[in-house]
Amino acid sequence: MQEFYEEKADALHEECGVFGIFSPEKERIAPIVYHGLYALQHRGQESCGMVINHDGLFSSHKNLGLVGEVFTPEVMQALPEGQIGVGHVRYATTGDAKIANCQPLEINHRKGHLALAHNGNLSNAYALRDRLELGGAIFHTTSDTEIIAYMITQKRLRFPSIEKAALAAMQELEGAYSLILMSPTKMLALRDPHGFRPLCYGRLPSGAWVASSESCALDAVGATFIRELLPGELVVFSSAGIQSCREYCAKKAETFCSFEYIYFARPDSHLFGLSVHDVRRQAGILLHERHPVDADLVIGAPDSGLDAALGFAEASGIPYRIGLIKNKYIGRTFIEPGQDHRSDQVRIKLNPIRSVIAGKRIVLVDDSIVRGTTSRQLIRLLREAGAKEIHMRISSPPFISPCYYGTDIDSKEHLIATGRSLQEMAAYIEADSLGFLDPEDLQTMLVRAGRGSDHTCAREDAALSACPGLCRACFTEDYPTSIPAGTRKNRFENPLDSI
Amino acid sequence: MQEFYEEKADALHEECGVFGIFSPEKERIAPIVYHGLYALQHRGQESCGMVINHDGLFSSHKNLGLVGEVFTPEVMQALPEGQIGVGHVRYATTGDAKIANCQPLEINHRKGHLALAHNGNLSNAYALRDRLELGGAIFHTTSDTEIIAYMITQKRLRFPSIEKAALAAMQELEGAYSLILMSPTKMLALRDPHGFRPLCYGRLPSGAWVASSESCALDAVGATFIRELLPGELVVFSSAGIQSCREYCAKKAETFCSFEYIYFARPDSHLFGLSVHDVRRQAGILLHERHPVDADLVIGAPDSGLDAALGFAEASGIPYRIGLIKNKYIGRTFIEPGQDHRSDQVRIKLNPIRSVIAGKRIVLVDDSIVRGTTSRQLIRLLREAGAKEIHMRISSPPFISPCYYGTDIDSKEHLIATGRSLQEMAAYIEADSLGFLDPEDLQTMLVRAGRGSDHTCAREDAALSACPGLCRACFTEDYPTSIPAGTRKNRFENPLDSI
Amino acid sequence: MQEFYEEKADALHEECGVFGIFSPEKERIAPIVYHGLYALQHRGQESCGMVINHDGLFSSHKNLGLVGEVFTPEVMQALPEGQIGVGHVRYATTGDAKIANCQPLEINHRKGHLALAHNGNLSNAYALRDRLELGGAIFHTTSDTEIIAYMITQKRLRFPSIEKAALAAMQELEGAYSLILMSPTKMLALRDPHGFRPLCYGRLPSGAWVASSESCALDAVGATFIRELLPGELVVFSSAGIQSCREYCAKKAETFCSFEYIYFARPDSHLFGLSVHDVRRQAGILLHERHPVDADLVIGAPDSGLDAALGFAEASGIPYRIGLIKNKYIGRTFIEPGQDHRSDQVRIKLNPIRSVIAGKRIVLVDDSIVRGTTSRQLIRLLREAGAKEIHMRISSPPFISPCYYGTDIDSKEHLIATGRSLQEMAAYIEADSLGFLDPEDLQTMLVRAGRGSDHTCAREDAALSACPGLCRACFTEDYPTSIPAGTRKNRFENPLDSI
Amino acid sequence: MQEFYEEKADALHEECGVFGIFSPEKERIAPIVYHGLYALQHRGQESCGMVINHDGLFSSHKNLGLVGEVFTPEVMQALPEGQIGVGHVRYATTGDAKIANCQPLEINHRKGHLALAHNGNLSNAYALRDRLELGGAIFHTTSDTEIIAYMITQKRLRFPSIEKAALAAMQELEGAYSLILMSPTKMLALRDPHGFRPLCYGRLPSGAWVASSESCALDAVGATFIRELLPGELVVFSSAGIQSCREYCAKKAETFCSFEYIYFARPDSHLFGLSVHDVRRQAGILLHERHPVDADLVIGAPDSGLDAALGFAEASGIPYRIGLIKNKYIGRTFIEPGQDHRSDQVRIKLNPIRSVIAGKRIVLVDDSIVRGTTSRQLIRLLREAGAKEIHMRISSPPFISPCYYGTDIDSKEHLIATGRSLQEMAAYIEADSLGFLDPEDLQTMLVRAGRGSDHTCAREDAALSACPGLCRACFTEDYPTSIPAGTRKNRFENPLDSI
Repeated sequence: MQEFYEEKADALHEECGVFGIFSPEKERIAPIVYHGLYALQHRGQESCGMVINHDGLFSSHKNLGLVGEVFTPEVMQALPEGQIGVGHVRYATTGDAKIANCQPLEINHRKGHLALAHNGNLSNAYALRDRLELGGAIFHTTSDTEIIAYMITQKRLRFPSIEKAALAAMQELEGAYSLILMSPTKMLALRDPHGFRPLCYGRLPSGAWVASSESCALDAVGATFIRELLPGELVVFSSAGIQSCREYCAKKAETFCSFEYIYFARPDSHLFGLSVHDVRRQAGILLHERHPVDADLVIGAPDSGLDAALGFAEASGIPYRIGLIKNKYIGRTFIEPGQDHRSDQVRIKLNPIRSVIAGKRIVLVDDSIVRGTTSRQLIRLLREAGAKEIHMRISSPPFISPCYYGTDIDSKEHLIATGRSLQEMAAYIEADSLGFLDPEDLQTMLVRAGRGSDHTCAREDAALSACPGLCRACFTEDYPTSIPAGTRKNRFENPLDSI
Repeated sequence: MQEFYEEKADALHEECGVFGIFSPEKERIAPIVYHGLYALQHRGQESCGMVINHDGLFSSHKNLGLVGEVFTPEVMQALPEGQIGVGHVRYATTGDAKIANCQPLEINHRKGHLALAHNGNLSNAYALRDRLELGGAIFHTTSDTEIIAYMITQKRLRFPSIEKAALAAMQELEGAYSLILMSPTKMLALRDPHGFRPLCYGRLPSGAWVASSESCALDAVGATFIRELLPGELVVFSSAGIQSCREYCAKKAETFCSFEYIYFARPDSHLFGLSVHDVRRQAGILLHERHPVDADLVIGAPDSGLDAALGFAEASGIPYRIGLIKNKYIGRTFIEPGQDHRSDQVRIKLNPIRSVIAGKRIVLVDDSIVRGTTSRQLIRLLREAGAKEIHMRISSPPFISPCYYGTDIDSKEHLIATGRSLQEMAAYIEADSLGFLDPEDLQTMLVRAGRGSDHTCAREDAALSACPGLCRACFTEDYPTSIPAGTRKNRFENPLDSI
Repeated sequence: MQEFYEEKADALHEECGVFGIFSPEKERIAPIVYHGLYALQHRGQESCGMVINHDGLFSSHKNLGLVGEVFTPEVMQALPEGQIGVGHVRYATTGDAKIANCQPLEINHRKGHLALAHNGNLSNAYALRDRLELGGAIFHTTSDTEIIAYMITQKRLRFPSIEKAALAAMQELEGAYSLILMSPTKMLALRDPHGFRPLCYGRLPSGAWVASSESCALDAVGATFIRELLPGELVVFSSAGIQSCREYCAKKAETFCSFEYIYFARPDSHLFGLSVHDVRRQAGILLHERHPVDADLVIGAPDSGLDAALGFAEASGIPYRIGLIKNKYIGRTFIEPGQDHRSDQVRIKLNPIRSVIAGKRIVLVDDSIVRGTTSRQLIRLLREAGAKEIHMRISSPPFISPCYYGTDIDSKEHLIATGRSLQEMAAYIEADSLGFLDPEDLQTMLVRAGRGSDHTCAREDAALSACPGLCRACFTEDYPTSIPAGTRKNRFENPLDSI
Repeated sequence: MQEFYEEKADALHEECGVFGIFSPEKERIAPIVYHGLYALQHRGQESCGMVINHDGLFSSHKNLGLVGEVFTPEVMQALPEGQIGVGHVRYATTGDAKIANCQPLEINHRKGHLALAHNGNLSNAYALRDRLELGGAIFHTTSDTEIIAYMITQKRLRFPSIEKAALAAMQELEGAYSLILMSPTKMLALRDPHGFRPLCYGRLPSGAWVASSESCALDAVGATFIRELLPGELVVFSSAGIQSCREYCAKKAETFCSFEYIYFARPDSHLFGLSVHDVRRQAGILLHERHPVDADLVIGAPDSGLDAALGFAEASGIPYRIGLIKNKYIGRTFIEPGQDHRSDQVRIKLNPIRSVIAGKRIVLVDDSIVRGTTSRQLIRLLREAGAKEIHMRISSPPFISPCYYGTDIDSKEHLIATGRSLQEMAAYIEADSLGFLDPEDLQTMLVRAGRGSDHTCAREDAALSACPGLCRACFTEDYPTSIPAGTRKNRFENPLDSI
């Protein structure tokens, strides 16, 4: 059975950040949303948007581009004061980079306006969309956020409040969703029962509540972190205060995305009470235990390999050094300016410090390998700079399988681990040796990072174990939900036959 | 009973232009749509868009701005070849100038993609939207085009083809709609049974079919005009050729918008077989018959008063002169650049030729008066230039009532005719005399323009009278359909109570 | 002897508009300059700029684009209040469309800032530039305005005031220059002794003085027209009032550009006291006298042929009709969007009204013919619309020679009149007959337009004849100044050998 | 005596980067200049530009913005192939951020085109400009690059080649200039005899020569580093090969800017044969020797304090940790979006890792302190995150005096060191202790970094000592050249009196 349009299937794979604010007083909240999104920019650099609620009227601005590009001073000035605001940053594959897909999604329905900011992917999107379409639904976007909007508004016709409607919809949604939702009078934050994606909230000195994908955005706006949402929890922020609905909590196995710890989240964020930086440092320590090597110095691939490199150096006693300088202006805006000059992308982004590297045996630590081509270019660059040996250490297991919960992993045939032994991988990237973590190490690094940590915030419920359960499906093929059949296929053999 | 959001009510009042092409071969059709929209630009200067269909895959670009601004060379180059294309130009009130409302509307549903370009307004939009929302529909836009999209796609679930679905939907749609619709394999053009808004089609030398709001766009792309659609007709353009469905034809009284003849359409277009220029010239002749005056020269207010001024001059024997020069760079982009300099907008746009005007008794012909403030400024400008007498002649009756079929007429309390006698109106605009056409004259000007004209194209069905029936509701309050109750009201007394 | 860089030679051919204001009080003058430039937009659509003087500090904005595009609300808001402001609109050939060449030109020198807005071209630019370069001057632009700036600032080192310096510079400048110049404390308006290009001034109700290329811009800002500058006059506007320096007046033969009357100026402007519209109407009357024809109706090519067409109709008794509709959105922004669709540019811009044209013998009046290809396309368009005969009448003589004073006339080999008899020209454009004015008619049309006119403003000096002397060099090859040798040539055979 | 316009004085303080290429064959060199400028972006983020020389014709693009913003794919595509190209990145104070001041400066003169890219500031700019203005020169910009252009072109009138002219001009130029100059056929790189600013060259595999401010840009384009220019050297790149003119070498004391080592240059660049990273690491080691402290961990202020922090950690044995995370999207585009939310800028840019910081005694290493307010905010942030003690260590001496050679140092009254003892400074920034390097340490850190280094490239001349002589004027008030009197003053008491 072929299920979906090609472009729809591609769009399912994305990573995003959400931010919301509920203020007891009408005030200039747009700058707060702006700063929150700025702090979450690493979760999505392709498009961004915010919606401001002024006495029930919604004003919004969304566009392709970084927060600093989209929200010019003119745009900011045009946004009104408000009590509630919600924002979103988004990454998506190229073909899907349409303004129509920018979030927050805004809809009008029987009971008023609704704005939704979503991080994650539904694993039963196809089935739900089929059902909705057979019921007469039409879709403007190719994102599954629109499916959630339909589910909630249809429930709203039969339930007396938006939170009741949202709870009823949660019954039918499967997969990953950390969601901030804004009605004319309320802000709702909700997290799927598996807890795939992060979501937390805090409070500003003004008394306003703020919700965010990561705690670093609370820090950026000067808010005090309160706690992470429990998997399956829905929190309602309204003029009546805040209210927690936990009827879906602890109904499903907790499977927090391990790749949030490894790569996605900012090192200064806390997830399930654990410092991301600490977890990565522990990954580096574990990596040394699994794959020790005799070398002269340890360097990290900027920026994502630095924390683990420091851990590796600490555990091994090999000196930590700065060996690669990243051009800090390389961003989303870097476009290869001409076909004639076949430039080496890695060379543009990273430059080795020859005086550090030359004649040395190097341990190079990075967070992950996808295709291996970038690692190979990096290793060649270090050899040109005079490195005597290069021992690559990766602070995660090899990818072997796709993600259905919001991470855009390359298709299986391109993954370096597909059909290659560890030695063949090392040869492919031209490293003297190569080491990964084992899938089991992921839990270990959390346990270790948790020792002596103040990681009680999300663990307040004594019924929960000390560390979060992890989703490791991309490393093990062991999926915590049923996965959709026939994805990445066209619904119709020949779309021109269908109508 | 209060029905709708404020912004929704405002959005109902708009004027638009539609254009489509169906080519037997895949080719560069985007430039053809571009030229068609350029020729229809006068029907909507706020936003524009086009969707190109390449083997069932839709590529689109829409934005606020004029055709020449939105479709830059880079944008045009990025649009693919295709067999079918549809485009739209749109005018809307300021508050509604959102990218989300730009057309063509694109949706995905059970049976594939659909793109719709719509001109007109449904008079039963509120009732239909209510019904759809109660059935679980959500709305992204505030335009009634989305309602039509829902109606058609819901029918499509039960009917075997898009044309059958569209015909079934027409059963329930009331009001004005001239629509071009694109499915993965077909282009549909349809016109409501009243025939409120124009729609015609023709053929390119290449064999491609083109449909357009006005015939001037067929001329612009080098197409041969074939005929206008009959009121109630649906024409299907497909690889099987063209097919006309007339089951709704002649089911309702034909009420073509008289203001299309008076102002909207380009003078070089033909509507119901009549040259718009000829009709306006006849309006000028009639105006002389109704309100003759002794004067030295006749001038028209550029550009919309020129055709009727020529007719008035011809009938009266008073010389036609060029007395006002319009700054041809004043367009949508003119923004009053500073609050300090309270400039006279009319003075910026129009400048009298003193040597023509000074010492003369002037007949000034314009197409219509809304509030009267612009006419007064214009008359003052002519007096400053030395005019001895100014006799204003208007080639339409006074507005007295709102339009529910796609024309944005000012609210009743602002209309110059509200509560004023003809003499009071003349005094208000500071004219020496003032004359309007009578509502009955509208039919007369068509009959006269039709004499000796080759106006058989749309009149091919002998059952139809020689001239189109006209909608004159804005001049008479005599509406051809039932009109919606409670428009321009908020649905909720207090929107914050609702959810 | 080869004289100049290729791009410099090309840049000599341009047409521009200048505008300035001197206010006794500091106020928001930027919007006044904006409106003035808007009214002069027809004199240059490629770039524009303004400089505002706030207590001797200059703030400026210049860019490629129309006034309404370049001066966005943000830009306007950023411009400060001031006492003096000067603005410029510019046309130049494509290769020269650089921001560096945008005017007003701003320079810093020994005695302070200077801003210059210039319309015209020096005929001794090459000689002056040579001399300056040998004295060590460097040039940033390719325009001769920079030469004027050098001349004035070098004189300023030896003369006690900017006006004395400017007068001293005028001694050496040859050719066409209507110039507005702003120093930290004064505004100067000056016009070359031949009076090639127009320049006038007036006064606002606030007491501020405004100077402008054409009187239509005075009307647009609500200023009272005072008078045109005399050829050779320099007027100083300062806090001490206004002062006229006439030592160069009547030193040279007055040779006002006849093409200003024929095409450049707006019909609502007055030049040498004559209404441009009146002059064009007289051209139409003369055209009928020279080349009468038996026909059914007279139409003008919009917009520049309309005034003369009305005159032709009036003189001949043949009815004047509107037969061609111009797409009023076609402007500088029209870019042919694709190479695949070889569209007919004339068809995009103009559309005949078939009901007016069909079966008729047409007199088609236009202001001039350059290459003849556009006229031929237009005539074909009218034939397609059913015209029985087309008699083309041109309200100027044929071009035979280049202009060295600011008009960009096509090179000789492309001019339709080069090597063709009148009949051959008619055949080339496919007209049934063709008629031009004679060069002598240019003076006649002024004399006739002047009869009964209030054209005393610039003629206040009794020593001047009733009508301006005209430059007709482009029609006669009889140049009023010596003309530069070797223009349009590279200075160096091989530029790579030179340095 | 008051010397200069206010804006001119402000403009003297800037830092820039230059890049050039000379290719034996015509090729697509614009992408190479693009990549070179991208690697030099840290030297100037305000504007950038490049000029491409195609057979003696210059094509250029310059604008405000980052390289990736200014050089869009469209702009890159429009730039032609060429043999020679020169590029520039620039920083300047806000008031001066004009397009007119963007470099490379392009001028036309007697002998052809010239393009100049300049890094540095002349210390005798005022005197030279006075002399030039008295000779009739006019200035378009407020930068001293235009002075250099005048000097060279005036010499060119008397000297037979551009290189002879440049050498003659060098006789009169005082202060800092690292310059790349392009004539129709040659590229010149020259460096002032003091060697204030860096300049080096290398070669591409294609045989093309590239010159650059820093070696990191040679790495980025894949060029092999050859050597740095000697202070006072001029290198000519032409079709005849390369030629070194050393008549000004060793004529003046070498005074290389010490702040290039401390802050400006990228750590992966080599200056005078020394790795910038190594020098900074030695600064950290020296800092430990001068100001040891008992602490738990060492952290660097990202990014400029990281290298020295690593050195401090290494020397002290105190563990190096990552304690502050920088938002990597904060760039030039970050604009405080609203006045209502008085956000803490430091909080937006940097976030402490609480789990690392809490309860710890921290050594915080940064490169320099200007006003001290940022340091204070940073220290408060660390205290909020739970730091027990904070010991600030600065890898440079305190600023006490302005720079006249191209560095924009705050005015004396704002510098933290003005009128404060070390302890008062520590109290001001709220640190538990504070330590700076001594001015003498600057030479020591170079000597140490040089030991065992391959730093022979620029030291090839045996007459030169092993390490560069340094300019330390901003730390010592001991200026290597005479310094201009009366800078930062208006030339005229009242500019309105002057003209």
